[in-house]
Amino acid sequence: MEMTPGNKREWEKLEAVAANGLLDRRAFLRGGAALAAAMSGYTLVESAAAAPLADDPWSLEPGAASPSYEKRSRFEEKVARTLSNPKGETRTSHARTPHHLLNGSFTPNSLHFTIVHAGTPDIDPDKHRLVIHGLVKQPLVFTLDTLSRYPMVSRMTFVECGGNSAPMFSPQPIQATAQALHGLVSCAEWTGVRLSTLLEETGIDPKAKWLIAEGADEPALSRSVPLGKAMDDAMVALYQNGERLMPGNGYPMRLLLPGWEGNMNVKFLRRLKLVEQPAMSYYEARTYSQVLPDGKAFKFYFLQEVKSFITQPSPGLAMKGPGYYEISGIAYSGNGRISKVMVSADGGRSWGQADLQLPVLSKAFTRFRMPWRWDGGPAVLQSRAWDEAGNVQPTRAQFVAARGETKTVPSVMGFPNQHYNSLTSWAIDGKGEVKHVYA
Amino acid sequence: MEMTPGNKREWEKLEAVAANGLLDRRAFLRGGAALAAAMSGYTLVESAAAAPLADDPWSLEPGAASPSYEKRSRFEEKVARTLSNPKGETRTSHARTPHHLLNGSFTPNSLHFTIVHAGTPDIDPDKHRLVIHGLVKQPLVFTLDTLSRYPMVSRMTFVECGGNSAPMFSPQPIQATAQALHGLVSCAEWTGVRLSTLLEETGIDPKAKWLIAEGADEPALSRSVPLGKAMDDAMVALYQNGERLMPGNGYPMRLLLPGWEGNMNVKFLRRLKLVEQPAMSYYEARTYSQVLPDGKAFKFYFLQEVKSFITQPSPGLAMKGPGYYEISGIAYSGNGRISKVMVSADGGRSWGQADLQLPVLSKAFTRFRMPWRWDGGPAVLQSRAWDEAGNVQPTRAQFVAARGETKTVPSVMGFPNQHYNSLTSWAIDGKGEVKHVYA
Repeated sequence: MEMTPGNKREWEKLEAVAANGLLDRRAFLRGGAALAAAMSGYTLVESAAAAPLADDPWSLEPGAASPSYEKRSRFEEKVARTLSNPKGETRTSHARTPHHLLNGSFTPNSLHFTIVHAGTPDIDPDKHRLVIHGLVKQPLVFTLDTLSRYPMVSRMTFVECGGNSAPMFSPQPIQATAQALHGLVSCAEWTGVRLSTLLEETGIDPKAKWLIAEGADEPALSRSVPLGKAMDDAMVALYQNGERLMPGNGYPMRLLLPGWEGNMNVKFLRRLKLVEQPAMSYYEARTYSQVLPDGKAFKFYFLQEVKSFITQPSPGLAMKGPGYYEISGIAYSGNGRISKVMVSADGGRSWGQADLQLPVLSKAFTRFRMPWRWDGGPAVLQSRAWDEAGNVQPTRAQFVAARGETKTVPSVMGFPNQHYNSLTSWAIDGKGEVKHVYA
Repeated sequence: MEMTPGNKREWEKLEAVAANGLLDRRAFLRGGAALAAAMSGYTLVESAAAAPLADDPWSLEPGAASPSYEKRSRFEEKVARTLSNPKGETRTSHARTPHHLLNGSFTPNSLHFTIVHAGTPDIDPDKHRLVIHGLVKQPLVFTLDTLSRYPMVSRMTFVECGGNSAPMFSPQPIQATAQALHGLVSCAEWTGVRLSTLLEETGIDPKAKWLIAEGADEPALSRSVPLGKAMDDAMVALYQNGERLMPGNGYPMRLLLPGWEGNMNVKFLRRLKLVEQPAMSYYEARTYSQVLPDGKAFKFYFLQEVKSFITQPSPGLAMKGPGYYEISGIAYSGNGRISKVMVSADGGRSWGQADLQLPVLSKAFTRFRMPWRWDGGPAVLQSRAWDEAGNVQPTRAQFVAARGETKTVPSVMGFPNQHYNSLTSWAIDGKGEVKHVYA
């Protein structure tokens, strides 16, 4: 498509919502003129006359048989989780979600992040049991079959490791993709039985204030959960995006605590013991008790706070010349619904409000989108999210003052720090390369 | 858990909403007494004291390494699509979704139904092109890369073959599962570019009233689409549930016409030609022009009308003794949102209103749930759905009067009839076996 003088005039009239090419998303909703104007001056598409459609080889002969459980195209194999422990040595394994290669508002099961501390157990679902005991009126044992007869609920919710985005505690920006920096969060529709339903079956001793959730993996990972959360929106999840849980996400059942630290969403769930006091188990007494700049530490830090990051454009995705782009990303909050996402193309000096993909669900991914016309010059892209409880992502300066940073520049893996929720900045240079910066 | 006299009294007090054990779902929301009462008298769970928790073998040693693209558990292999053409012979292939083994509100990609007429092509996405031409101002060619720069949208929507549920046209109820009867409908979140956006790029000649959509598979499947639908909510879909489309669902791009006959949602989309008149192509002139009882035929029948069916309990799932069950199923309408689902346990003589899983989305699956206490006697389960446009599933008598039935009892495959949307009835006998009946 060639630039026409008419289009040129439209583009010059087109209203920006912020500096450096951020366009008024409302103009796009009114129809084609705004888009045509935004596109003008740059060739995105070819004239059909210049490139007549020829039959490709796959159009000339019959294709493959349909399998009973379909696999994705062989051309998509690059869309993969990155592994911190590909050989499965006897240490923690992380598998990170490739956010920059996905779109939409949740994560396909095969690409959902997972962390396991001694590999993924191969559990026979017919032999697995869940016991609820301790300070209850009647301790009970549930099989997968019996659980499947209880009233069920479904909800879309994200799960995020407390250590997601930990490389952002580095005093210098580590060059890495959105996957490496933020790949320890994913979102799925979980279906299962409300934990409150099961606790009403066992009855609760009034002395009970906590429960200890334990997994059937080799380390018997256990975490303490306040009874209030258990009775609020906790679930024993049996299905993930319509089918049974993936092995790395706790097959055949996991605890789901919407909006709370991933490690507490105990996988391979086999035991819930009601108690008076938290257990101070390994992962709550050590790994997740982060030391603050003043030397104090959080005893517990359950909530995953409001956060967002841009997935397109982002490092690893080359810009393909100046012109129209859609800036797109993910926002979420453990406090509830996302209420607003603002986007900047000039490192935070000016901001425009992004479109939120509907429906906006509580404690779930919200995809945001912002129309942008890149003029080919330097730009620094940022997003900043607000939630319905009134929380906002802190600036980096605010965050570092409150929560500290590491003294050195370690690798992308193995940061001791937790619960980073400040902004992420992507700098684009004149060649279209995208880099991680602090701005 | 043993039945206690207290529980027994609770159960007798518990209010039913319809005959044969349908319970008041609102009572369940108020807390545990109703559930405890519904459960009482039958043992679902074991006392923990009677079955102390022992370590299973998988808890005693480290598990498997996390893969970059995760596979489901080996114990889930029975959850599979059924294939009408497993060897990929040169004829149409159907792969049906196992609804009775899934839960939640959409279909995982590997289990989404697919129909292909000459196998699934192995398309190189970098070489694939989409051309828009005919009655446009400027014919254009789009690559996957250029399409990915346009403004995108995501929406959850079902796709249903016009021939889904065709075995229900048989004058005698065919014994088959929900998968065999209704497996040609699935639901996913699709992300892509609004077709209206692309047509605004090419410009539309005022003479254009239809477009012909053509696929890049060997038969070059083509269907005519009214321009009004194309400009309303049609999409060129690039992502399915977050990742690129599955091969059987049109990789790398498909036409998505929310709520309209699956065959029109042309897969492997390579051409959109704007024209004055429909093409009367093979699938619209022959397969989908159904003859009615009075000898007339629909010229076009685009809409997939309001429908529902129960997935649990259903044939192939054995009842496990009397007691509490959740009746659960799927409802959807090509007209918009589901407004109400009623459930009967006595073959339609009395009805209770089911819970709808929120959010209820337009032209998407809505999971419904109804608490039920099965007394071990005969029952006939039915569901009936209403949509926000005021449509309701017709009774079987109404449906057969208007749309006819076949004269013979053919096999489950290959019915010539289309667009069945009446009720489905599952009869349960005293042994707990579930059968397909007409009631």
